[in-house]
Amino acid sequence: METTTVALIGGGLIGYSWAAIFARAGCHVRIYDASEEQRERLPELLKAQLEELESVGLAEDAAGAFARISVSESMAVAIEGADHVQENGPERLEVKQELLKEVDSLADAAATIASSTSALLPSALSERLAGRHRFLVAHPVNPPHLIPVVELCPAPWTEEGAMEKVRALMQAIGQKPLVMKREIDGFILNRLQGALLREAFSLVDQDYARVEDVDAAVSDGLGLRWSFMGPFETIDLNAPDGLADYGRRYREMYAKMAGSEAKPWSDDLLAKAETQRREILPAGKLPDRQRWRDARLQALALHKRDQDDRER
Amino acid sequence: METTTVALIGGGLIGYSWAAIFARAGCHVRIYDASEEQRERLPELLKAQLEELESVGLAEDAAGAFARISVSESMAVAIEGADHVQENGPERLEVKQELLKEVDSLADAAATIASSTSALLPSALSERLAGRHRFLVAHPVNPPHLIPVVELCPAPWTEEGAMEKVRALMQAIGQKPLVMKREIDGFILNRLQGALLREAFSLVDQDYARVEDVDAAVSDGLGLRWSFMGPFETIDLNAPDGLADYGRRYREMYAKMAGSEAKPWSDDLLAKAETQRREILPAGKLPDRQRWRDARLQALALHKRDQDDRER
Repeated sequence: METTTVALIGGGLIGYSWAAIFARAGCHVRIYDASEEQRERLPELLKAQLEELESVGLAEDAAGAFARISVSESMAVAIEGADHVQENGPERLEVKQELLKEVDSLADAAATIASSTSALLPSALSERLAGRHRFLVAHPVNPPHLIPVVELCPAPWTEEGAMEKVRALMQAIGQKPLVMKREIDGFILNRLQGALLREAFSLVDQDYARVEDVDAAVSDGLGLRWSFMGPFETIDLNAPDGLADYGRRYREMYAKMAGSEAKPWSDDLLAKAETQRREILPAGKLPDRQRWRDARLQALALHKRDQDDRER
Repeated sequence: METTTVALIGGGLIGYSWAAIFARAGCHVRIYDASEEQRERLPELLKAQLEELESVGLAEDAAGAFARISVSESMAVAIEGADHVQENGPERLEVKQELLKEVDSLADAAATIASSTSALLPSALSERLAGRHRFLVAHPVNPPHLIPVVELCPAPWTEEGAMEKVRALMQAIGQKPLVMKREIDGFILNRLQGALLREAFSLVDQDYARVEDVDAAVSDGLGLRWSFMGPFETIDLNAPDGLADYGRRYREMYAKMAGSEAKPWSDDLLAKAETQRREILPAGKLPDRQRWRDARLQALALHKRDQDDRER
């Protein structure tokens, strides 16, 4: 990572968190914020964050990482020669469009450009950029040093090579890139969170349960598996013959819950998801992976008990 | 707990898992299975399960717990004098109706009766029982010694006192009771899981992302918080003024994602959920709880890193 230089445009909470995780992994980082006041505060904020990470075992060499970060006096200085530019400006379309136009004009031809936006679509952000082929969204979750997933979302004109370069960069710094094939409102995370919230609000609205009881269903139930397996892996390990087997057993039940318009998952859709799972986990390995799940659940149960004991 | 006797009717996987967690907590347990072969195997299965729990630190005295369990030769022997009867028979309506009729005729007038069903509604199971006022569903999640939530779902005629007695019992043995106010298909857990799966399948169906990328959104993102906070607590801590503040900020965004027919959460609904949250966490404690969340996220990040290191 020592040969990689990353420019961060916007030095608020998201910007300096990015700085810490890029620098922790060995990258050279240049960070710029439009506010002179914020630029003056940044060294202190960065030093404190890196020292905290080191103190809890989440960074090995805070001083070394800090030495790899410089606060730039201008966007031009930050971006010149950078391999990747990450934009973390205010969450307003016109502001980001302006900012990205300037970034695009300053960045090396080979540089990739990503926005940290949580909700603006990459097509809207980049449609007028000369270098829009090397632009994508790379949406981190706050705080990124504790929640590693980064959503990578292309515009229709984003080149495969740009997606792959940023994917590899995110993986190299220890984050978990999630690669989208095309854009949609809410990307993946907020769509999944929205789906869960809709059902949760509906149950409370109709007085089936209270807020704390719906929460318990997740924090003492479903959420335990979800902290180390996604929803597809969960069901893949929950029927003898894997995902499609689970889908065939329970699709009528789930469709009934979803209401009158819902159709059960089709055989084609189950086959598609099954094929993708089998590329990751061959059918013969399902029993091994079920044992892995049980071991992880057990370790998590002990971890949670220790945490609860500590709070008493 | 030494004065509490629990009868378990049905000694399959769910039945003997219940036996282990009731006995671990100090209850006297009588377990009956219709199959003589299974009755003969039960002592060995129970001993092995309790010893495994002890070996990993999830039971303190396996031998003592084992000594509190007896395998009964008949339903009558198991149920006589029991404070609570937990039915774990085959997941078929007619079979459970028959079984519960016999249970109801044998149980003490003061005993509560619960079914472990994951999908059959309590009204259908109990409508013809003479003692239907003391019947409810108590749905555990497999494996219950690692996933503590138990869904308690009443039929329209279930008495408040029966719900409260079983809630207190579940809490006393270290499980996490989730109390429903009235029945609905899928109870709470499967409805929430179904909502997440619907969105997950839809994203894969329409080629926004692949199965493993949707899974990463949960296992390296949303699921981390959900392993110790439910969806309502998550959003309560994600806006300066709590749940309703979050709802007002983002309801348009979530409604847009949900499609054309979806209406944003109403002010009344947000106020209802906010009121229920404020009973658990006063507004003045939000900053403390946010620090608690961050500390838990940090501990979980270290836990996951240790688990990953161990698997390498």
